[in-house]
Amino acid sequence: MKDTAVLLIDCPDRKGLVARVAGMLYEHGANILHADQHQDHDLGLFFMRVEWALKDAESKEGDAGNGSRFDLDGFKEAFAPLAAELDMRWRIESTHQKPRIALFCSQYLHCVADLLHRWQSRELYCDIPVIVSNHREVEKLAAYCGIAFEHVPVNAATRGETEERQTAILERHEVELVVLARYMQILSPAFVARYPAAIINVHHSFLPAFTGARPYHAAHARGVKLIGATSHYVTEVLDDGPIIEQDVARISHRDQVEDLVARGRDLERLVLSRAVRWHLDRRILCYGNKTVVFD
Amino acid sequence: MKDTAVLLIDCPDRKGLVARVAGMLYEHGANILHADQHQDHDLGLFFMRVEWALKDAESKEGDAGNGSRFDLDGFKEAFAPLAAELDMRWRIESTHQKPRIALFCSQYLHCVADLLHRWQSRELYCDIPVIVSNHREVEKLAAYCGIAFEHVPVNAATRGETEERQTAILERHEVELVVLARYMQILSPAFVARYPAAIINVHHSFLPAFTGARPYHAAHARGVKLIGATSHYVTEVLDDGPIIEQDVARISHRDQVEDLVARGRDLERLVLSRAVRWHLDRRILCYGNKTVVFD
Amino acid sequence: MKDTAVLLIDCPDRKGLVARVAGMLYEHGANILHADQHQDHDLGLFFMRVEWALKDAESKEGDAGNGSRFDLDGFKEAFAPLAAELDMRWRIESTHQKPRIALFCSQYLHCVADLLHRWQSRELYCDIPVIVSNHREVEKLAAYCGIAFEHVPVNAATRGETEERQTAILERHEVELVVLARYMQILSPAFVARYPAAIINVHHSFLPAFTGARPYHAAHARGVKLIGATSHYVTEVLDDGPIIEQDVARISHRDQVEDLVARGRDLERLVLSRAVRWHLDRRILCYGNKTVVFD
Amino acid sequence: MKDTAVLLIDCPDRKGLVARVAGMLYEHGANILHADQHQDHDLGLFFMRVEWALKDAESKEGDAGNGSRFDLDGFKEAFAPLAAELDMRWRIESTHQKPRIALFCSQYLHCVADLLHRWQSRELYCDIPVIVSNHREVEKLAAYCGIAFEHVPVNAATRGETEERQTAILERHEVELVVLARYMQILSPAFVARYPAAIINVHHSFLPAFTGARPYHAAHARGVKLIGATSHYVTEVLDDGPIIEQDVARISHRDQVEDLVARGRDLERLVLSRAVRWHLDRRILCYGNKTVVFD
Repeated sequence: MKDTAVLLIDCPDRKGLVARVAGMLYEHGANILHADQHQDHDLGLFFMRVEWALKDAESKEGDAGNGSRFDLDGFKEAFAPLAAELDMRWRIESTHQKPRIALFCSQYLHCVADLLHRWQSRELYCDIPVIVSNHREVEKLAAYCGIAFEHVPVNAATRGETEERQTAILERHEVELVVLARYMQILSPAFVARYPAAIINVHHSFLPAFTGARPYHAAHARGVKLIGATSHYVTEVLDDGPIIEQDVARISHRDQVEDLVARGRDLERLVLSRAVRWHLDRRILCYGNKTVVFD
Repeated sequence: MKDTAVLLIDCPDRKGLVARVAGMLYEHGANILHADQHQDHDLGLFFMRVEWALKDAESKEGDAGNGSRFDLDGFKEAFAPLAAELDMRWRIESTHQKPRIALFCSQYLHCVADLLHRWQSRELYCDIPVIVSNHREVEKLAAYCGIAFEHVPVNAATRGETEERQTAILERHEVELVVLARYMQILSPAFVARYPAAIINVHHSFLPAFTGARPYHAAHARGVKLIGATSHYVTEVLDDGPIIEQDVARISHRDQVEDLVARGRDLERLVLSRAVRWHLDRRILCYGNKTVVFD
Repeated sequence: MKDTAVLLIDCPDRKGLVARVAGMLYEHGANILHADQHQDHDLGLFFMRVEWALKDAESKEGDAGNGSRFDLDGFKEAFAPLAAELDMRWRIESTHQKPRIALFCSQYLHCVADLLHRWQSRELYCDIPVIVSNHREVEKLAAYCGIAFEHVPVNAATRGETEERQTAILERHEVELVVLARYMQILSPAFVARYPAAIINVHHSFLPAFTGARPYHAAHARGVKLIGATSHYVTEVLDDGPIIEQDVARISHRDQVEDLVARGRDLERLVLSRAVRWHLDRRILCYGNKTVVFD
Repeated sequence: MKDTAVLLIDCPDRKGLVARVAGMLYEHGANILHADQHQDHDLGLFFMRVEWALKDAESKEGDAGNGSRFDLDGFKEAFAPLAAELDMRWRIESTHQKPRIALFCSQYLHCVADLLHRWQSRELYCDIPVIVSNHREVEKLAAYCGIAFEHVPVNAATRGETEERQTAILERHEVELVVLARYMQILSPAFVARYPAAIINVHHSFLPAFTGARPYHAAHARGVKLIGATSHYVTEVLDDGPIIEQDVARISHRDQVEDLVARGRDLERLVLSRAVRWHLDRRILCYGNKTVVFD
């Protein structure tokens, strides 16, 4: 079980940032496990992720009192003025707390099934209170996993109503992250705006090639020698959000569209599951239309 | 030294094609080394490549006379009526004969230097009589390799003249294949039309993403997690010809445009050299806007 | 639903093999869908795989009688003397018939869960009548999939008895292929001998590196920069059978053993599922200690 | 042209290391460009690499005096006591200073030619004063590049003498790094001991598989589906030093040994050139028999 804190920072670059952040963590007795930073020299931006233990390894033998546990609230209080001075956007989270995820899917279940298996085997540290679909194929699987299933049919005429139902479901389940696991419907800008950098989609092409519908057909028609898949945060513009992960597989002239679809399923599973894991590990920072994904 | 013949076939699919081609080769005593075929079931097309030894391995001990050597001319004569009956586009070539290549480049030499090294070490079985460039950076390298260098400056106003000079050079050197090894100029449709499926270009992106100029800048701006390179035959439409080979490399948020450029050079070298080698090995068939690349 | 036949051949190489096989197929009216051959020039061996339609596409309109369906038994009868003359090992199978598979696993379920999902979504065309394990973790999943579960505990003292039970289970379920989906027990030579080229294992390293137990620990200790996984047919010698498929993933100094284990799970899933699919597609021929895997 | 300093640290892990190092750099006014650290939690070790500008970007307008330039000597002096207190192994280098490299090769030139091209195109920032070979194939290329060539024949009987000559050459040219670019001779432990973590070799297999001679033959015999190459620092034990980089390429049953050799050349070029570049960039730290390669 994880018992660490993660600090994520995004601010204008200037001298001494690492020194001041590391110094404050040191003063509060943090036992740093991982630290990583990145500078975008063109834009003059600085990004940092630090993870430290909340239970002090050096005081294992149960010496009672506050000494043995990092005082996270105290640190936040102390950090806020520094962050303000340095124009930081920042957040500190305890990894102990499981993020709550909703899975959206349609009739293809390979991504959902893959995420659920990873969740069951504790590769993904989160709660999955609900699965939402415009089809019923996933119902039995949801039941097997002990997850609520919500069937929300979609048709163009009633999109507004549909999204109201979806929003109500997400709120009822206190969902923090929506994962579109091959959910084949388009979300409205209003819906997307409610979940900034908190909706992850997988697109079955190597973006920005082959945006839109039927990318495997387009790839086959163009005669590419590699197919790809892309996981990204959803923004207002279709298939245009910040890319989190991409991968490709080699194909040949022998592969028909159905072969691309089959090969692609493995790519989709991998790039989506990596994106979700990295999000859960608080490793991703968005800026502009891009992501920093800390190692 | 190679001493084989290659037959390439492209025709409407129908029953018995393999049997009839293989049967005729057998009748003529061919010792088949490699055979591969492909069917495009959607379009009803059949493609075949057969390579066989011209010197019969079974008659090594120098028994004089025709028996010890495959009669290529006789086979061609016999094959022509069959090919006509079956609506084949076909060609038979002796691999003994070295194709003649011209390299075109601009100021970046990594692709040219790579191809030249492969040629010198006999990885590429061809003659390279001439290198053409609108810059002079390659001149010393051409001299070192003992290859004629032609400096043909380019400017928009005199494109016609330029291409006339280039065409004259190609004709004088009896060039069969033009390799654009990071040649940063656009060729006119008229020029391209003279060399159907005989101009190979390398584009520094994973086509069809990032066509046109400065693809690494575009890739950086879009925030992709993989960069690519593509080798393809040149057609009238820029960056749109049949793709021969593609490859990608993983990048991260740490990589600036200049890092992409550096990483990309290795990709460009690889995908271009593979395309040239496969072309020289007579492994590529074009159809529609796609390629069949036999193993 | 598939409705084709596959012919697999393995024999001494000689002139005319393709012509004679293709000729006989043509005479019997076969509509060839895929054909591939391979020659090992060093060993003088020839390998071939041909797949053809059993229902004739050209006689769709229901013209009754034998004409509309390939006479597979008649072809086998006609082919046998040719095969004998040419010293062939051969088999002809209808892809319509689903092979019967048993899955063996221990406490890690990622490979089993992956294979089961592929089976449920019809990516794997087979029957899976039984899952055998020395642990009980898979029991609930087997029930969900409607597959018989057999708990066969293993201990060194009673290996003979254990294998008798396992053999009885396999016979009762008429199993043709055993898939060791991270089954962490060693099978006896006697057991292996009953299933020649019909037991597929996944080893969690890039064989022949890191044979034996705890390969991720060994990889970490050696400081490799890539980890791998290997699927192979099981032979008497541990981790030494013919390799079917391998793949690798990049790691770095940051990755601890548990990270390698997590990354490796994805590799294991992929290389095992590919091996099983290729086996089911009758694409694999073994010779010596190697495999030919037709495209 | 680079004008930065790099600090590399390797010490027992303890709280506050980042804070103290970053704090001292801040006090001295360092403008940090890249910083990266790594902890080996099992061994309790801490590694850090910091790169900062020597010319202050904020004082471009030529304000004379020391203010505009980082005082590297002053920093070293101040840093030494801190390093001593914290048990650090450390070094600080100016990237402005080009390391001096000797290339060793035998008759195969693909790695040498590749490194030389990268050096000429300034991808590798170093001096290459001398090429040493036991063959003469590289002589013409060395002359073309304006590099001294030393022909040092090798035979078992006179190994000691040979290495004396080689050592004298290296000393005369003040060589800091020896790159074995497919140098097919074994170096004595005495020779190796003179250049700790300063001899880079490329081995043409995916180590630890296929150590020793003729790895492509061994890979072909084993029937692997991927071949690899490995660059590593040379230690006393053959093919056993700390691995810097590895890469693989997919092969198939079609590939004969000579195909593996050809495919492998590209891998060898890539993994060797990456290792040399990372070494030149002061990105590599060795510990135990492993490397940390900072991004």
